[in-house]
Amino acid sequence: MPQPVDFYFDFSSPYGYFAAAKIDALAAKYDRTTTWRPILLGAVFKITGQQPLPTIPMKGGYALHDLNRSARWFKIPFRMPGKFPISSTAPSRAYYWLQDRDPVAAKTLALALYSAYFSEDQDISSPDITADIAAKLGHGRDAVLQAINDPVIKERLKTEVDAAIERGVFGSPYIVVDGEPFWGSDRLDQVEQWLAKGKW
Amino acid sequence: MPQPVDFYFDFSSPYGYFAAAKIDALAAKYDRTTTWRPILLGAVFKITGQQPLPTIPMKGGYALHDLNRSARWFKIPFRMPGKFPISSTAPSRAYYWLQDRDPVAAKTLALALYSAYFSEDQDISSPDITADIAAKLGHGRDAVLQAINDPVIKERLKTEVDAAIERGVFGSPYIVVDGEPFWGSDRLDQVEQWLAKGKW
Repeated sequence: MPQPVDFYFDFSSPYGYFAAAKIDALAAKYDRTTTWRPILLGAVFKITGQQPLPTIPMKGGYALHDLNRSARWFKIPFRMPGKFPISSTAPSRAYYWLQDRDPVAAKTLALALYSAYFSEDQDISSPDITADIAAKLGHGRDAVLQAINDPVIKERLKTEVDAAIERGVFGSPYIVVDGEPFWGSDRLDQVEQWLAKGKW
Repeated sequence: MPQPVDFYFDFSSPYGYFAAAKIDALAAKYDRTTTWRPILLGAVFKITGQQPLPTIPMKGGYALHDLNRSARWFKIPFRMPGKFPISSTAPSRAYYWLQDRDPVAAKTLALALYSAYFSEDQDISSPDITADIAAKLGHGRDAVLQAINDPVIKERLKTEVDAAIERGVFGSPYIVVDGEPFWGSDRLDQVEQWLAKGKW
């Protein structure tokens, strides 16, 4: 039985959003499952000294252009949110809370949260908005809000982020196939080749 | 008559090296010519505050892995040079000197310089090594050395770099098709689509 493909992403990462829309179908094509692992890039950037894309002179303007064009390329609805980047703590905690209960539902929630942020400009950094989105999918609104403030879930997210950093995850999306790391939605073609044939 | 495709690159940029190996054949497939424009990323990084990839914590180790894997992906010989990054002033000046005399020969020289650096670990930041490589292609060794120290050529390179920055070029490779900018060797598939059908 092959290992699941590890899919690391930050809820505030637009390229992570693109990859999230593609990764499960891509893995399934090669009879592989995935494990989704939301992380907090802010904690990573403290180590790498990187800055959020839009704040980098010259690169920021191109990035916005590239995001819109890449969204059309992937045929994914996209509208740059008014507030960017945002803290992804609330949606990440909601994700891990649900993952322990129902991993499939957790992915559905992740896609709904991503979509709300990157195509409807909803500020999912707000626990209330994250809980509203979860409630629409049939999850208890109060249970989600409680989970976001639960010390156990807080610690769980921290542990996941630390483990990701320990593994070398420095960006989003970051995909690991049988130990082989791929960074960026522009590596999905190489991910596919690796799934199909292994090392080239 | 369509405009040539503008191909900006830095002689010290491995992803620029990959794109250099591909861009002319790609453009020719759609009956397009190219104009090659070596730049100095050092001048750009002063504005954007970016650091050379290998010096970034976590990202640096991945970058080396990605470079080797992407070289195999593109089927391009590659060996990470012992000294990296290097100043690309000498090869860039030699390029512009020759471009004014013979644009086709200048591209051949650029490919030879890139190949010497990224597959044979020759330090092309040295005017002597750049001149040696040009001499092997039939250009006068002394004429190349003289060009590298020629105030007119120095100014020419400076003007090209300033114009590139003015245009928003912040990385290598950076490809402009009919005003549409693409950054990175991982955008070659989008460049091809743009050449084939224009905006999507």
